[in-house]
Amino acid sequence: MANPHQIPSYLKQETLGPWGVYLEQIDRVTPYLGNLARWVETLKRPKRILVVDVPIERDDGSIAHFEGYRVQHNTSRGPGKGGVRFHQDVTLSEVMALSAWMTVKNAAVNVPYGGAKGGIRVDPKTLSQGELQRMTRRYISEINIIIGPNKDIPAPDVNTNEQIMVWMMDTYSMNQGSTASGVVTGKPISLGGSLGRHEATGRGVFVVGCEAASRIGLDIKGARVAVQGFGNVGAIAARLFSEAGVRIVAVQDHAGTIMRPSGLDVAALQAHVAATGSVVGFPGGEEISDREQFWGVECDILVPAALEQQIDEKTPGRFAQS
Amino acid sequence: MANPHQIPSYLKQETLGPWGVYLEQIDRVTPYLGNLARWVETLKRPKRILVVDVPIERDDGSIAHFEGYRVQHNTSRGPGKGGVRFHQDVTLSEVMALSAWMTVKNAAVNVPYGGAKGGIRVDPKTLSQGELQRMTRRYISEINIIIGPNKDIPAPDVNTNEQIMVWMMDTYSMNQGSTASGVVTGKPISLGGSLGRHEATGRGVFVVGCEAASRIGLDIKGARVAVQGFGNVGAIAARLFSEAGVRIVAVQDHAGTIMRPSGLDVAALQAHVAATGSVVGFPGGEEISDREQFWGVECDILVPAALEQQIDEKTPGRFAQS
Amino acid sequence: MANPHQIPSYLKQETLGPWGVYLEQIDRVTPYLGNLARWVETLKRPKRILVVDVPIERDDGSIAHFEGYRVQHNTSRGPGKGGVRFHQDVTLSEVMALSAWMTVKNAAVNVPYGGAKGGIRVDPKTLSQGELQRMTRRYISEINIIIGPNKDIPAPDVNTNEQIMVWMMDTYSMNQGSTASGVVTGKPISLGGSLGRHEATGRGVFVVGCEAASRIGLDIKGARVAVQGFGNVGAIAARLFSEAGVRIVAVQDHAGTIMRPSGLDVAALQAHVAATGSVVGFPGGEEISDREQFWGVECDILVPAALEQQIDEKTPGRFAQS
Amino acid sequence: MANPHQIPSYLKQETLGPWGVYLEQIDRVTPYLGNLARWVETLKRPKRILVVDVPIERDDGSIAHFEGYRVQHNTSRGPGKGGVRFHQDVTLSEVMALSAWMTVKNAAVNVPYGGAKGGIRVDPKTLSQGELQRMTRRYISEINIIIGPNKDIPAPDVNTNEQIMVWMMDTYSMNQGSTASGVVTGKPISLGGSLGRHEATGRGVFVVGCEAASRIGLDIKGARVAVQGFGNVGAIAARLFSEAGVRIVAVQDHAGTIMRPSGLDVAALQAHVAATGSVVGFPGGEEISDREQFWGVECDILVPAALEQQIDEKTPGRFAQS
Amino acid sequence: MANPHQIPSYLKQETLGPWGVYLEQIDRVTPYLGNLARWVETLKRPKRILVVDVPIERDDGSIAHFEGYRVQHNTSRGPGKGGVRFHQDVTLSEVMALSAWMTVKNAAVNVPYGGAKGGIRVDPKTLSQGELQRMTRRYISEINIIIGPNKDIPAPDVNTNEQIMVWMMDTYSMNQGSTASGVVTGKPISLGGSLGRHEATGRGVFVVGCEAASRIGLDIKGARVAVQGFGNVGAIAARLFSEAGVRIVAVQDHAGTIMRPSGLDVAALQAHVAATGSVVGFPGGEEISDREQFWGVECDILVPAALEQQIDEKTPGRFAQS
Amino acid sequence: MANPHQIPSYLKQETLGPWGVYLEQIDRVTPYLGNLARWVETLKRPKRILVVDVPIERDDGSIAHFEGYRVQHNTSRGPGKGGVRFHQDVTLSEVMALSAWMTVKNAAVNVPYGGAKGGIRVDPKTLSQGELQRMTRRYISEINIIIGPNKDIPAPDVNTNEQIMVWMMDTYSMNQGSTASGVVTGKPISLGGSLGRHEATGRGVFVVGCEAASRIGLDIKGARVAVQGFGNVGAIAARLFSEAGVRIVAVQDHAGTIMRPSGLDVAALQAHVAATGSVVGFPGGEEISDREQFWGVECDILVPAALEQQIDEKTPGRFAQS
Repeated sequence: MANPHQIPSYLKQETLGPWGVYLEQIDRVTPYLGNLARWVETLKRPKRILVVDVPIERDDGSIAHFEGYRVQHNTSRGPGKGGVRFHQDVTLSEVMALSAWMTVKNAAVNVPYGGAKGGIRVDPKTLSQGELQRMTRRYISEINIIIGPNKDIPAPDVNTNEQIMVWMMDTYSMNQGSTASGVVTGKPISLGGSLGRHEATGRGVFVVGCEAASRIGLDIKGARVAVQGFGNVGAIAARLFSEAGVRIVAVQDHAGTIMRPSGLDVAALQAHVAATGSVVGFPGGEEISDREQFWGVECDILVPAALEQQIDEKTPGRFAQS
Repeated sequence: MANPHQIPSYLKQETLGPWGVYLEQIDRVTPYLGNLARWVETLKRPKRILVVDVPIERDDGSIAHFEGYRVQHNTSRGPGKGGVRFHQDVTLSEVMALSAWMTVKNAAVNVPYGGAKGGIRVDPKTLSQGELQRMTRRYISEINIIIGPNKDIPAPDVNTNEQIMVWMMDTYSMNQGSTASGVVTGKPISLGGSLGRHEATGRGVFVVGCEAASRIGLDIKGARVAVQGFGNVGAIAARLFSEAGVRIVAVQDHAGTIMRPSGLDVAALQAHVAATGSVVGFPGGEEISDREQFWGVECDILVPAALEQQIDEKTPGRFAQS
Repeated sequence: MANPHQIPSYLKQETLGPWGVYLEQIDRVTPYLGNLARWVETLKRPKRILVVDVPIERDDGSIAHFEGYRVQHNTSRGPGKGGVRFHQDVTLSEVMALSAWMTVKNAAVNVPYGGAKGGIRVDPKTLSQGELQRMTRRYISEINIIIGPNKDIPAPDVNTNEQIMVWMMDTYSMNQGSTASGVVTGKPISLGGSLGRHEATGRGVFVVGCEAASRIGLDIKGARVAVQGFGNVGAIAARLFSEAGVRIVAVQDHAGTIMRPSGLDVAALQAHVAATGSVVGFPGGEEISDREQFWGVECDILVPAALEQQIDEKTPGRFAQS
Repeated sequence: MANPHQIPSYLKQETLGPWGVYLEQIDRVTPYLGNLARWVETLKRPKRILVVDVPIERDDGSIAHFEGYRVQHNTSRGPGKGGVRFHQDVTLSEVMALSAWMTVKNAAVNVPYGGAKGGIRVDPKTLSQGELQRMTRRYISEINIIIGPNKDIPAPDVNTNEQIMVWMMDTYSMNQGSTASGVVTGKPISLGGSLGRHEATGRGVFVVGCEAASRIGLDIKGARVAVQGFGNVGAIAARLFSEAGVRIVAVQDHAGTIMRPSGLDVAALQAHVAATGSVVGFPGGEEISDREQFWGVECDILVPAALEQQIDEKTPGRFAQS
Repeated sequence: MANPHQIPSYLKQETLGPWGVYLEQIDRVTPYLGNLARWVETLKRPKRILVVDVPIERDDGSIAHFEGYRVQHNTSRGPGKGGVRFHQDVTLSEVMALSAWMTVKNAAVNVPYGGAKGGIRVDPKTLSQGELQRMTRRYISEINIIIGPNKDIPAPDVNTNEQIMVWMMDTYSMNQGSTASGVVTGKPISLGGSLGRHEATGRGVFVVGCEAASRIGLDIKGARVAVQGFGNVGAIAARLFSEAGVRIVAVQDHAGTIMRPSGLDVAALQAHVAATGSVVGFPGGEEISDREQFWGVECDILVPAALEQQIDEKTPGRFAQS
Repeated sequence: MANPHQIPSYLKQETLGPWGVYLEQIDRVTPYLGNLARWVETLKRPKRILVVDVPIERDDGSIAHFEGYRVQHNTSRGPGKGGVRFHQDVTLSEVMALSAWMTVKNAAVNVPYGGAKGGIRVDPKTLSQGELQRMTRRYISEINIIIGPNKDIPAPDVNTNEQIMVWMMDTYSMNQGSTASGVVTGKPISLGGSLGRHEATGRGVFVVGCEAASRIGLDIKGARVAVQGFGNVGAIAARLFSEAGVRIVAVQDHAGTIMRPSGLDVAALQAHVAATGSVVGFPGGEEISDREQFWGVECDILVPAALEQQIDEKTPGRFAQS
């Protein structure tokens, strides 16, 4: 439980959410920090939280309002860096925690960036393309006082794809009066995006998985991998593992779970998902109706590539049983 | 009870506080707004909330962190305008509500300003002058991306006096590289402050009181006034009423309550408070130990000049009994 | 004919249009300027012409492009000032000429503003409200590098009403990150617009007409006025003249011409136009099918309140015949 | 013939000039663009055209005005990039076309720049050095709202040399209050210019020529080259070809044409031009009085290194005859 | 003698000049300041001194360098305000002292401006008009990081007239990209200058003189006035005094001294100076060859309207003798 | 003796100090500059001198004022670059000279930076840490109008260490509203500092020493080195020389001189200095009481690593005697 006096007044004990998880993580590592422990209090407070009202005109002429966030947790090491999430469950607590984790991740790999994160509390599936564009543009207009190539650089996250990053870049550029490709990452390559960016997160999962296997003496060829989430991260990791000779024994997405002990055909599964929207109904595997069963699948490597907070203290127990 | 779906995700139903009060007020007046009711949704959402970490070095070399806020509720009618409060009970909900009331008040008197408010969650009495100055300066450095003579103009509020406004103005001016007297109000007259500003709020209470008395046919001469709060607002209102022939029959401050049915000597009471810090022990009146009794005092005009949320649905009942 | 060597290379002799008219006017007055004639060359060249591409997404998902203009003819006396016209016949030549006439008009009445003008070559009647808004906002985003309260202040003109000025102000304000009511005139009063602005141009026509009548000894009571154009200028002038006892003997708008020697009922005509979109079919007068006949109507005062270039060297002749 | 409805209103059909050529080129390649054809409409419209009046005080105290241009055709891929031309025949149409070709060229070689171009309609030979400097500085002051290292970067072009680029850089730097070497290319090496820049265009011609020869199986040694234009591009290409064993059989400049089937001595010709200003009178070759004969010279490679629009549909015919 | 430890290290004791005079004045009034004496240390140090190199190209192509200054002594009460002096004897010490006196003068008359002053160490009579313009423009380009309508507003002073103020305003405006009439005072009325500005200083002398006379019971009619300096200040004061019935008994300028006990004809003297450049040779008075004799002339009011440091401790003695 | 007419008016002949030394150096090399001599006049004048008052509140509540400087000698080759010195003997003359030498040094090694330097005239040993921090921050606030990653980049110098650079960077970053690591060099590595920076100057001395020895045929192994100054430069050079087999025969610091013909143990000496604050009392060598004797020590290489102006025309003579 996080230390009560460090809980911000706008997040009560009972609603701490992901930020509470982060605070506990910090408390857990503090004893090992030695002299650096004096920075713990700083890490427990985001430098800057901006909450904005994002009003748009719906296609039917009515006005809708959305809560928009941009949190810069720490920029001591360089400009803020972190994605923007469009999701109906986005909360300030979640954005705060994700921004803090960006601080930690960027420092861990020693890139000169601080940690930041943004989001809009909206289910983008309820918006038309025009509404989505207007909401994205208004959001950037509202937060553009704190972003920029030398200040804070948004990236794609859940439900924000290349098209949305282009709208962000164009809005910022229009406001500046000149093209600013450096204001966002995750752009299309033709507008200055990075080669390999699309696959980067999934490839990172694959590389780390192989390294971890190597350390524990697990031969990756023939090893069994279970993947939760089959979006940009999970699907690409699955494909790369598969190409390396790994068996993908289970895949779960928002709609269902599909298993095949001898290994799924990932390319075929990707084509199925592209065509139908989910893994449900994939003919090349066995569909499981109880989502919890996924956690009991026999595997050597588990890839959690869905949203956060899927794993809790009971998850390892389930694996132990299997 | 405020409509659940309009409560921001960062303020849960159970912690709505003053913002909840504001939402209910809006709901109450909405039926009378006619065509203007389409703006209600906008009024229910602050345009921009900025929460900042305000770290300072304490005199003993340790670092202390404070939560700082600046909320711009609505700036459609002009730059934001509203005070900055230093108090240990400041919450985001409170600052949001106060900023919204500034929008309403500025529109009601038709001045070309929007509504804004700021605050730091700190008990300034626990800080040395040096610490107070450093905290004020860091706070302004953190929010100066959204303030300015044409953007948002802080003013004094609870625990922020002329000296603090000067530190704010100096910090902003140093950052700009040139003197910006327009960035705050409540400055000393020698630095561009307004004549009469010091007494303005208290005088407003007096003027409104006289006008209200006139409307209901109450002769102000000899009328009885009870004053809660004896700071910049209450004491000046009491003095002006007194000079107009009114009897100040009761005064309550944070420390105690003093009554005199034939009227207190306000000048003497002010001298007593200046010397001792409170009305307690004032020889020219009777001291009451039960704070609740204040609400039962017989009077024609009640001046609530303390912090907000002193009056609730039970208060009128008490008067009725008296 | 304008002096060939002063014609800009981007406007050939044969396409000079309104700018050619302006150049000829300058040439005509030059002999009377004395020492000031040395500024003639400056007056013959706009200080700054900005032509922008204004792309928008149509409601059907296709992209449409429009030519947008902002010309600052001269800003020596202060910020540029001048309207923005949305019309399918807008040309660079026209915007240049209108901006130059703004320089002259502002100097003539000695207000501290220079001359500017803008426009988009578009028939706004072919756009939906959403398209109109998107086009207006993109246009302002493209020209906002040269406008601002201290630089150049757009105003309404043909087909740009209060709503459009609000979109302009909001776009500019979003880009700035703070409300800038000073960036446009012609705003609604509730957002900082000026009282009386709506009627100002028409009232100006009325005031000048009365003054002129007085100078030539014409009694305004019972005088006959013919009005061409029944929009914001013509209709208001007609109403004011009518209230002053003048007979409105003829009104012509884009759709037709209506006459009544004993004077039209202007209030009824306004109601008719509000209901039907033009003067055609107004029962309180005689409708004339030949538009040219308007110029032959017997009247004491002619109010040309339509677009420019309606009157040429033959017009006086027609009156002489009548 | 360009599609009439895409011709900008400020460039009539009959005066389309180089922009008309560009529009036709776009139309010609459109059928091959496939899905990318949806961008054709964008390519047919410059994003931003700025036309400015450039007044200077002549050495005799009189004021002269010049038309100055800066066109940013497209900046989607990065800051605008393109030269500034000082020539009496500069027109808006020409600057537009050159800026569009910069867009295409920069994209073709995949450098992260957009396309832009500038110019002043002036014969610089009619100006003193002081006048030339004042005109250059005023021009930069007028366009500096749209240029900068991250916005648009001018380069030298016809009649704008290193000295003029330094004036541009100094004017911009003075305005900024700090040295901005990134604002122009073509600077002297001592102020941050690039090594090899001086020869880059000519060397590019040489490299491309060799590559083309190689593709068609032409041995470059002993091949015959004719060069039109003997300025910064033509002379350097000629020298490099010559050093590679090519015979330079003809050179034409603004003043005359010189031929030598066995190959001209390029170093001697350069010395002659440096001393006399043109190829006319060069003793090491035969002078041709009919300029048209140049096009009939027998050669393997033709280098068109003069101004644009020297070659038309009849030119190949002339070669065929020879 | 100024307190040694307060002398800036860049101005040695032996070279203190006017700044030393100022320091002594401060020391002299300090005993009377009471509580305000704590600001004396601040008044003894200019807030900001900017010294710039001002290089220009002479008409002969050579480069000349001049020392330029802008000192902002104190801006607590508002933007800096003070003239720019072009004179061969300008020193840093002088500009510092003049800026400090501007602080005092602006505070004394309670206008919301601080004190500033600028200058170039140059004899403008050695420059052609072109050189003067280039020097003025370069000077403004160099100091424009600290001036502006809200920062510091230059004014005319010795050798800087309306024309020079226009060059300053134009240079600043070009740099900004928009006209900024507020950046200087002393502009021509047609560009936003103030009515009456031209005569303001001389009229001030006249008004103060009359007030002083009235206080000591001196009838201004027939009183005798001696004027040192016959430029913009002295000549206008002399004219106004003369029109009020005062006798102007002596006038001294840089070239000579002219006396007439019965009063000089000021209008005739002005015409003479306009024609010949000095009072020397004026037929309507007696010319005095010994400049020191001016100080012995019998008069009731002495107007010192030349440069500073004309009067020292011996001057009153001379009057006493007369 | 420097040419009198080039001495700035604010530095009299008798107080020229280091700037006088610099002017003489320039005069000495001018005859060898050939065509480049036309730039000598420019090199003799700093482009921009900024002198600021730096007031701070002392820990006892009193106000102290310090003279602060930032001089940008020349920025033609890029942003200014140079250290900030805190020392009681800092003078404008010294800062000017050091900034000029930065211009020369940066050009000599062909890095794209100009020359600048700053300083505060203060003995930092008389300040508490809090006072030191407040003074540093106020100084940066005062000069931040002319510094920045693209304008002028301060570095550490005498008495300004990593901690002070961090305060500078934080102050500038707070003012900007975003982290600007590029604004200073000499930062800690964790905040973006360069690896090897700490040892860079001393290592440069060592590298140059070895190169020079090699040129004159001196075998570095066993050679004798005398070091004046044992701070960041001298101590590191001594250690590197020592590690390369050189004998460090003498070390002098502010407190004393220590010698050992067979070579000092540099590591032990560093430990001694770290513990005691000076070389005095080091047991591994002979202490010399007469400081002048240092200059007579027998050595092959002399390392002058103390402040400037230690060596004059008599120094070589002393060596010659030894």
